Amino acid sequence: AERIRFILGEEDDSPAPPQLFTELDELLAIDGQEMEWKETARWIKFEEKVEQGGERWSKPHVATLSLHSLFELRTCIEKGSIMLDLEASSLPQVVEMIVDNQIETGLLKLELKDKVTYTLLRKHRHQTKKSNLRSLADIGKTVSSASRMFTNPDNGLLPEPLPRPTHPPQCCTPFFFLPKIMPSSQLKNKFMKKLPRDAEASNVLVGEVDFLENPFIAFVRLQQAVMLGALTEVPVPTRFLFILLGPKGKAKSYHEIGRAIATLMSDEVFHDIAYKAKDRQDLIAGIDEFLDEVIVLPPGEWDPAIRIEPPKSLPSSDKRKNMYSGGENLQMNGDTPHDGGHGGGGHGDCEELQRTGRFCGGLIKDIKRKAPFFASDFYDALNIQALSAILFIYLATVTNAITFGGLLGDATENMQGVLESFLGTAVTGAIFCLFAGQPLTILSSTGPVLVFERLLFNFSKDNDFDYLEFRLWIGLWSAFQCLILVATDASFLVKYFTRFTEEGFSSLISFIFIYDAFKKMIKLADHYPINSEFKVDYITHYSCACEPLDPGFMEMLSFFFLQYNTTIDWSSLTMKECLKYGGQLVGNNCDYVPDITLMSFILFFGTYTCSMALKKFKTSRYFPTTARKLISDFAIILSILIFCGIDALVGVDTPKLIVPSEFKPTSPERGWFIPPFGGNPWWVYLAAAIPALLVTILIFMDQQITAVIVNRKEHKLKKGAGYHLDLFWVAILMIVCSFMGLPWYVAATVISIAHIDSLKMETETSAPGEQPKFLGVREQRVTGVIVFILTGVSVFMAPILKFIPMPVLYGVFLYMGVASLNGVQFMDRLKLLLMPLKHQPDFIYLRHVPLRRVHLFTFLQVVCLALLWILKSTVAAIIFPVMILALVAVRKAMDYLFSQHDLSFLDDVIPEKDKKKKEDEKKKKKKK
Amino acid sequence: AERIRFILGEEDDSPAPPQLFTELDELLAIDGQEMEWKETARWIKFEEKVEQGGERWSKPHVATLSLHSLFELRTCIEKGSIMLDLEASSLPQVVEMIVDNQIETGLLKLELKDKVTYTLLRKHRHQTKKSNLRSLADIGKTVSSASRMFTNPDNGLLPEPLPRPTHPPQCCTPFFFLPKIMPSSQLKNKFMKKLPRDAEASNVLVGEVDFLENPFIAFVRLQQAVMLGALTEVPVPTRFLFILLGPKGKAKSYHEIGRAIATLMSDEVFHDIAYKAKDRQDLIAGIDEFLDEVIVLPPGEWDPAIRIEPPKSLPSSDKRKNMYSGGENLQMNGDTPHDGGHGGGGHGDCEELQRTGRFCGGLIKDIKRKAPFFASDFYDALNIQALSAILFIYLATVTNAITFGGLLGDATENMQGVLESFLGTAVTGAIFCLFAGQPLTILSSTGPVLVFERLLFNFSKDNDFDYLEFRLWIGLWSAFQCLILVATDASFLVKYFTRFTEEGFSSLISFIFIYDAFKKMIKLADHYPINSEFKVDYITHYSCACEPLDPGFMEMLSFFFLQYNTTIDWSSLTMKECLKYGGQLVGNNCDYVPDITLMSFILFFGTYTCSMALKKFKTSRYFPTTARKLISDFAIILSILIFCGIDALVGVDTPKLIVPSEFKPTSPERGWFIPPFGGNPWWVYLAAAIPALLVTILIFMDQQITAVIVNRKEHKLKKGAGYHLDLFWVAILMIVCSFMGLPWYVAATVISIAHIDSLKMETETSAPGEQPKFLGVREQRVTGVIVFILTGVSVFMAPILKFIPMPVLYGVFLYMGVASLNGVQFMDRLKLLLMPLKHQPDFIYLRHVPLRRVHLFTFLQVVCLALLWILKSTVAAIIFPVMILALVAVRKAMDYLFSQHDLSFLDDVIPEKDKKKKEDEKKKKKKK
Repeated sequence: AERIRFILGEEDDSPAPPQLFTELDELLAIDGQEMEWKETARWIKFEEKVEQGGERWSKPHVATLSLHSLFELRTCIEKGSIMLDLEASSLPQVVEMIVDNQIETGLLKLELKDKVTYTLLRKHRHQTKKSNLRSLADIGKTVSSASRMFTNPDNGLLPEPLPRPTHPPQCCTPFFFLPKIMPSSQLKNKFMKKLPRDAEASNVLVGEVDFLENPFIAFVRLQQAVMLGALTEVPVPTRFLFILLGPKGKAKSYHEIGRAIATLMSDEVFHDIAYKAKDRQDLIAGIDEFLDEVIVLPPGEWDPAIRIEPPKSLPSSDKRKNMYSGGENLQMNGDTPHDGGHGGGGHGDCEELQRTGRFCGGLIKDIKRKAPFFASDFYDALNIQALSAILFIYLATVTNAITFGGLLGDATENMQGVLESFLGTAVTGAIFCLFAGQPLTILSSTGPVLVFERLLFNFSKDNDFDYLEFRLWIGLWSAFQCLILVATDASFLVKYFTRFTEEGFSSLISFIFIYDAFKKMIKLADHYPINSEFKVDYITHYSCACEPLDPGFMEMLSFFFLQYNTTIDWSSLTMKECLKYGGQLVGNNCDYVPDITLMSFILFFGTYTCSMALKKFKTSRYFPTTARKLISDFAIILSILIFCGIDALVGVDTPKLIVPSEFKPTSPERGWFIPPFGGNPWWVYLAAAIPALLVTILIFMDQQITAVIVNRKEHKLKKGAGYHLDLFWVAILMIVCSFMGLPWYVAATVISIAHIDSLKMETETSAPGEQPKFLGVREQRVTGVIVFILTGVSVFMAPILKFIPMPVLYGVFLYMGVASLNGVQFMDRLKLLLMPLKHQPDFIYLRHVPLRRVHLFTFLQVVCLALLWILKSTVAAIIFPVMILALVAVRKAMDYLFSQHDLSFLDDVIPEKDKKKKEDEKKKKKKK
Repeated sequence: AERIRFILGEEDDSPAPPQLFTELDELLAIDGQEMEWKETARWIKFEEKVEQGGERWSKPHVATLSLHSLFELRTCIEKGSIMLDLEASSLPQVVEMIVDNQIETGLLKLELKDKVTYTLLRKHRHQTKKSNLRSLADIGKTVSSASRMFTNPDNGLLPEPLPRPTHPPQCCTPFFFLPKIMPSSQLKNKFMKKLPRDAEASNVLVGEVDFLENPFIAFVRLQQAVMLGALTEVPVPTRFLFILLGPKGKAKSYHEIGRAIATLMSDEVFHDIAYKAKDRQDLIAGIDEFLDEVIVLPPGEWDPAIRIEPPKSLPSSDKRKNMYSGGENLQMNGDTPHDGGHGGGGHGDCEELQRTGRFCGGLIKDIKRKAPFFASDFYDALNIQALSAILFIYLATVTNAITFGGLLGDATENMQGVLESFLGTAVTGAIFCLFAGQPLTILSSTGPVLVFERLLFNFSKDNDFDYLEFRLWIGLWSAFQCLILVATDASFLVKYFTRFTEEGFSSLISFIFIYDAFKKMIKLADHYPINSEFKVDYITHYSCACEPLDPGFMEMLSFFFLQYNTTIDWSSLTMKECLKYGGQLVGNNCDYVPDITLMSFILFFGTYTCSMALKKFKTSRYFPTTARKLISDFAIILSILIFCGIDALVGVDTPKLIVPSEFKPTSPERGWFIPPFGGNPWWVYLAAAIPALLVTILIFMDQQITAVIVNRKEHKLKKGAGYHLDLFWVAILMIVCSFMGLPWYVAATVISIAHIDSLKMETETSAPGEQPKFLGVREQRVTGVIVFILTGVSVFMAPILKFIPMPVLYGVFLYMGVASLNGVQFMDRLKLLLMPLKHQPDFIYLRHVPLRRVHLFTFLQVVCLALLWILKSTVAAIIFPVMILALVAVRKAMDYLFSQHDLSFLDDVIPEKDKKKKEDEKKKKKKK
C-alpha cells in the first residue's frame, strides 16, 4: 500500500497517462498452415473476444478471471524479463533487445535465439468487424463459395513479407516487414472511433511452441509509444508489450494468463502503475493491489460460462486510488452507509434561491447569470431532436389552447374565446421563451385561472361591472404584487418545496390530464350515441326524417313572417337546416350516430399505445441505434400521423381539430384594447386589489412549482434557473394580456415536463460496453419560440390542421399524463403497495427505511392528494393554489411523525441514481 | 487436490450430507442496551441479508466476497481451535468445551473464561419476515406509536433469561436459558418451508469485544446435529458452529470473515468437505479448493455495491467434484468447446422410434410403454391448471369445428356440415385422447383434408359417383394403408424430421393461423361495410326502405301464385322478409351497417392484446406468485370473458358464435350410416385405393410431424410417446368416420402446442434466489377427453355460447398463432436479420457459427416456406403433405452446403437451454 501510494503520488504534476487499447494475440496454426499470431480478444474497458467459429466479436463483457491465472501472472512478472522505458522504434528491434536480455540473464539458451525471434515476428491476423448489412450481402457470395468452408478472406492480412533490410537474411525465410504505410484494413477500422485521439496500445502475445522448455516471459514498456505496424488491430502506437511463449501443452493456461494481464492493463489503477512503475517490485505491488480489490464470486453460486454484462454504473477509480492509506475493506453487496442527513429542503443549497436582501437583487443576479448564455441559447438548438420537440409541443399547445379557449368562451360568454386563447398563448409564450430565466418552461392556461375567470365574470354580471375593465385592474394589481414579490426576492420561499410537495403537485396535474382525456372521450361518446339496438335485419325500419311541426302552427308562422317559405321541401333539409326552419326530426334513428364513437375510441387508444410503444422502441434490439433514436424522438408525431392516416383511410366523420380562421375578437362587443377607465366606478379600481391578491398567490404557486420541477437537479441543467426573472416576465405579460383582454398565462407543469423529456441528451457510448449517460437537456430558447410562433400562425393553417381528429389529440394528452408520472418516486411507492416483499425493486430507501414507514408516507401523500382532488372538483377550486401551500405545512408536520433519517431517504430532491454517487463523494471527502 | 479427492472419495458408501442452513449472527448493541447476537444474514444457496434500517430481508443475491476476507478466514482456520465431532447437547456445553480447549492450548487466558462464556451465551435476536399485508395493517398501529421511533417489538425476543440450573450463578447476571419449548416465532417462521426436512444448521457468530487482545476463533462440528434452541432462526438442529470474537475496531473485517465462512458452508463442495474433514488440514484444503475455483471480477469493471442476482442456471457441482484429477483450469466467459456433433437427426437416439423389424413390434412396444401410465393419466389431472386448459382448448376446438364445418358444408353442398364437424370432432377426439399413445395431441380438421374433400366432391359430381360411398371406400383403403404403416413400424421414418423440417412446418401452420385470423376479420369488414361518407348533419337523408319491384310484375305474380298476398305492408318488412317476398331495398343506407365492423376490430385486437398481457403477467412484480400464476393460466379465458362483457355492454350486434341446436345430419339426403355398397360400380371400390394413397401420405405427414413437435425433448415428457399407437387410432377412427360420413381427423399442430403450453409445470422455488425450473407437462388424458365431451355437448349449449362474438374468437386464433411461434429458433434467426451485430442476443449458435452462414440457413428456410405457402394457396394444395417431405430432402441437400459443425448448432432438436447442460455432461463423461 505504501509503495502504491508512492507510485501514484507523482500523478499530480504529470499529465494523466493516456487510455490504453489492449489486444490479446495468440499463436495459432490456422487452416493447418504455419503458425500466426491471431487476435483473440481486445479490451478498452471491457473484454470483447473473438468467438471461435462465430468469426465475430462477442458482446463486451466483464472479464471474469480465475484466481489461478492471476497468481500465475504474478509469478510470470516475478520471473520474466521486465524492461521498462525501452528505446526502440520497430518490432524487430524490440524483439532483439528482449531476446538479448533473456540470453544475458541466462533465461534463454543462445541457440534458441533465432527460433524465438522468428516466432515473435510471425505475421498478425486481426478480427475485423463486419457490418450486418455487409454480411447479408455476403450470403450470395457464400452460396457460390460454399464448398470452401471457413476461409476468411478479408481479415487484414499483410502483404507478403519481405526480408528485413537492416539484418542479414536468416535461415527461416518469411520474415515480418514493417510497412510505413498502414494496411488499408487497419485504417478503415470503424473501431477507431471508440478510442480517444491520444490512446496507446498494449499488446499481449501468448502462445505455445515446441522448442522451449522453460517459458519465455517479457514485460516491456517503451520509452515512447511507437507505431509497430500491423501488430495492432487499429493504428494506435504501442506502449506496452507482454510476451509469454511457453512449452507445448498449456495453451489454455497461457490464454488465461494473457487475459489476466490484459484485464490488468485495462484496469484504471494498474494502468497508472504500469505507466509509472520504476521496477519489477512496483508491478508486483500493482498486481497485489488489484488482487486486494478484486471481487470474488463463489463457484457454487455462479456459472463461469455466463458472460456478465457491463454494469450500469461503475465505481470511480479515484475511490480506490485514495484508499491505500486506510486498512478498511470494501463493503460487499452494497451496504454503503448513509450519514443521517437533514430531511427536506433539497433546494436549500441552490445558488439561485439564496436571498440577497437587496432590492431586486435576485432579479439582477438572474439576469447576470443568464445573459452569458443568451447567444448559446440559439445555436444550441441546432439538432434534429429540436424539430421533433417543436412538433410535439406545438400540437400539445394548440390542443391546450383550443380546449381552454373553448372553456373560457363558455365561461365568459365569448368575451374571451378560442381566438383570444390562440393569440394570448402565442404572444406570451414567445416573449417568455425569448427572455425568461428558464426558457424550457411552457406557458399555458391552467385550471385555477379558468375557475377564477368564471367566478369573476359571474360576479361582474351580477353587479353590473364592466367585466373586461374590472379584469384589467385586477390584472394590473396582481402584476404589481408579483413585481413586489420579484423585487423582494420572495421566490426564495421556493426552497421549502420538497420532493413531497413537488411530486404531489405534479402527480395531481398528471392525474387531471389523464382524467380529462377520458372525460372528453366519454363526452364524445355521449355526443355520438351508438344505436345498440341496431339489428342488421331491421335496417328497413331505421330512418330519420325532417318534418314540419304542426302544420297549422306553421301556416300561422308563414302568415306572420312573410319570409317563411311554406313550400320548403322538408325532406331535403339537413338536420341543422331542419331545426333552423323550425322542423322536427322524426324517426328511430335520429338520436344515433354510427361508427364515430367507436372509431374515436380506436384512435384514442391507438394513439396512446402507439406513442408508448414507439417511445420504448429505443431500447429494443432491432435496427441501428440512430434509427431507433430517431423513431423514439419522433414517437408522438409518428403516432399522430399514423392515426390521422388510419382515420382518413376509414373515412368516418370523427370530430376534427377546428382552429379559428379569421383574425378578430370572438365577441363583436370588444376590441383588441381594453380602455382602463370609464366602465366602472372609481373605487372598483382600488377594490380590485383584493381579488388580485388571490390571483397573485395562484400565479406565484403555479409558476414557481412548475419552475422548481423544471429546474430539478436530475435534469442536469447547466445554464442555471431564473425564478425571479421568470416571475418578472409573467407579471409583465400579465399587464399586456390584461390590456388586450387575453387570458392570463402561467407555467404548465405537464407540457413543460414533456418539453424537457423531448430534449434530453445522452452520450454516444465510448468504450464498448459502457452505458450511455444522461448528459442533460438541450437548453435553448428556439424550440419554445418556434412553438409559439407556429401557434400564432396556426390561425392560417386551418386547412391542414383540420385533418387531425380530436380523439388522436386526446390520446396524446393521455400519453403526456402517463409519461409525466414516470420516474416519480411517489408512483414507485404506490406500486410497492401491490408488490409482495420479495418482488420489490432494490430502491435505496427500501434498504434503509422500514417498509411500513414507507407505506405510511405514501398513505399520507395519497390522503393529501385525495383532499386536493376533491377540492379541485368543487367551487373551492379557487383556493386550490393556497392548498398547495398546505402541502408544505403537512410536510413540515411530518417531521414529528418520521425521523430525519427516514425523511432524508423518502423526501429528497436528489433522484435515485445520483444518491449513490453522492454517498461515494461524501465518503471520499471524509477520507480527505 | 489429492487430499480433496481422498476426502470426497468416501462419499460413495455414506449417504449425501444434508442441506445446510447457515446463519450469520453478529454481536451488536441494539437501542443502546446490552450486547446481543443479531442475525444479519442467512444462506441456503444464496445470501440474504438484513437491511440496516430497512428491517427486512434483502433479495437473495450472489455473495460477492473480497479476496482479503477469504485469506483472513484461511488464517483463522489455521490458527483457531478446530473441534470436529464434538459431543454436546446444549449450547452452554459446547461453549464450555470450546473455551476449555482454548485455555488448554494457551490461546485464551484463564481469567477471560467467564467473560467469553458470558458473551457467547447472550440472547439471540432474529429477523422475522413480515408479510406485506401485515405491514399494511401496521400503518394504523404505527401512526399511534409514531413517537417511539425504531422500536421493533415483535422480533422474536426470548422470554426473560433465567439462571442456568447446572452452573453456579455467575457474576454477570442475565444468562441465556435454553427452553425446551421452541419460541413461537421460530415455529411460525414461514421460511421453514424453503428447507428440506433433514436440513441442518450452521451458525456463524462474529463480534468484537473490548476485553480480548487476540481473536478467539473456533470451528466446531458436532457429532450429532443438536437443536440449540433459539440460536437459529428456524427450528433446525445445528451441526456447525464458527465463532470469531476479536478485539475492538475491526468489526467490518469480522463481518466479512463471517460472510466468507457462511458462503463456504453454502458451497456444495466445501459443505461436503466440512462434513467429512478429519482435521484442520482437510478444512484448509477445502478453502484452497474453493479459492481455486473462485470467479474473479476485476475491480474496475464491476461495482461491488451491486447485488448480483442469482443466475438462471448453475453449473452442477459434480463437475467440480470430478475435476481434481486434471490440472485443467476453468475456462472463463463461456468458451466451452462443442465436440463436432453429428448433424441432423435429433430423434435418432429416441427409444420410441427404433425399428423393431417385427410385425406390429412398434405398436406392441407403444402399448407396453403407455399401459403402466394409464391410471396416472387420470389422477395426474387433478389440478386447477387442467380446468383452465380445458376451457381454453375447448373454445379453440369449438371455433375450429365451426370454421371447418362451415367450409366443409360449402365445399360438399352440405353433405358434411357444421353438425357433422361437431360430432366428428367430439367422437374422434375423445376416443383418441382416451386410448392414443400421446393424449396431449388434439385432433382436428386440417387444411389439406379440406382441400382433398373439395376436389373429391367435385370429381364425384362430375362422374356421377355417389360421393359419400366413394369417400367411404377411400377412407377404408387409406385406413388399411395406415394400418400397414403401423404394422411395419414405418413411423421410425420420423427420425429424419429434424428441427429444420419441424420448425418449417409448425411456423407455416402458425402463419396460416395468423393469416386466417386477419382474413376472417377483413371478410367480416366486407360483410358489414362502414358508411365512410356519413355526415352527422345529413342524417335526415339516410334511409333504406323496402319497396315492391315493378308493380305490374308483382300483380302478374299474384295472378299466377295465389298465395302471394298483394296487400303486403312493404314498409314494415325486415330486410330478409323483403327479399324473400321479392321486394327490393331502396335507399342510400342499405349497403351500410353501422358500428359492427369497428366494434369487431376493437374486440379482435382487444382480445389478442389482453391475452398477451395477462399471459405475461406471471413475470410482473405485482401480487403474490399464486395470484399471478392463476391469472396467467386463465389468461385466454379471462380475455374472452372480458371482451364478451365489453361486447354485451356496448350492445352492438356483432356476429356471434352459432352452434347447431338440433341433432340431425346437415343434409336431409343422408343418414348417420353410409351403406358401403350399391351406389357405385364395383371397380370404383378397388380404384379408390389410388386416391387413398394420397390421403395416407397426407394423414401420415400431418399426424407424425405434429406428434414429433408434441414429443420434443424440450417438453420433458416423462410418459413416453406412441407414434405407432397414435397412427393406429387415427386409422381406426378414420374407418368410423368414413362409415358415419364424418370428416377425417388428424393431429392439429397449433392447438396441440397450445394444449401443452397450458399444461406446463414449474417448480415452486426452493432456496431463495433459485430460478423455478420447467418440470414438464401435466401429461394426462382428462383434459383432452373433457374438451371433446364438451364439444359434443355444445350442441345443447347454444344459449350460452351465443354470447361469444366471433371477433373475440378470431382474436384467440391470432393469439394462438403468435404464441406458437414463441421460442421457435427459426423466428429467433429471422429476428437476427433486423438486429445490428452488437445487439444480437448471445445464442449458442452465434458463438460457434459465422453470422453469414446463420443468415444463409435462415434464408433457405424462408425460401422453402415461401414456396410451400404459394403451393398451399393454389389447387396444388393437395400435394402439400408430399412437399413437406421435400423439406426433408432440402435438409439432406444442406449437408453439402454447410459443415456438420454448423449444422449441429443450427439444426438440432435440443433446445438452447439444454444444450449447455448437455455439453457439460459430455465433458463429464469424457473425464470418466
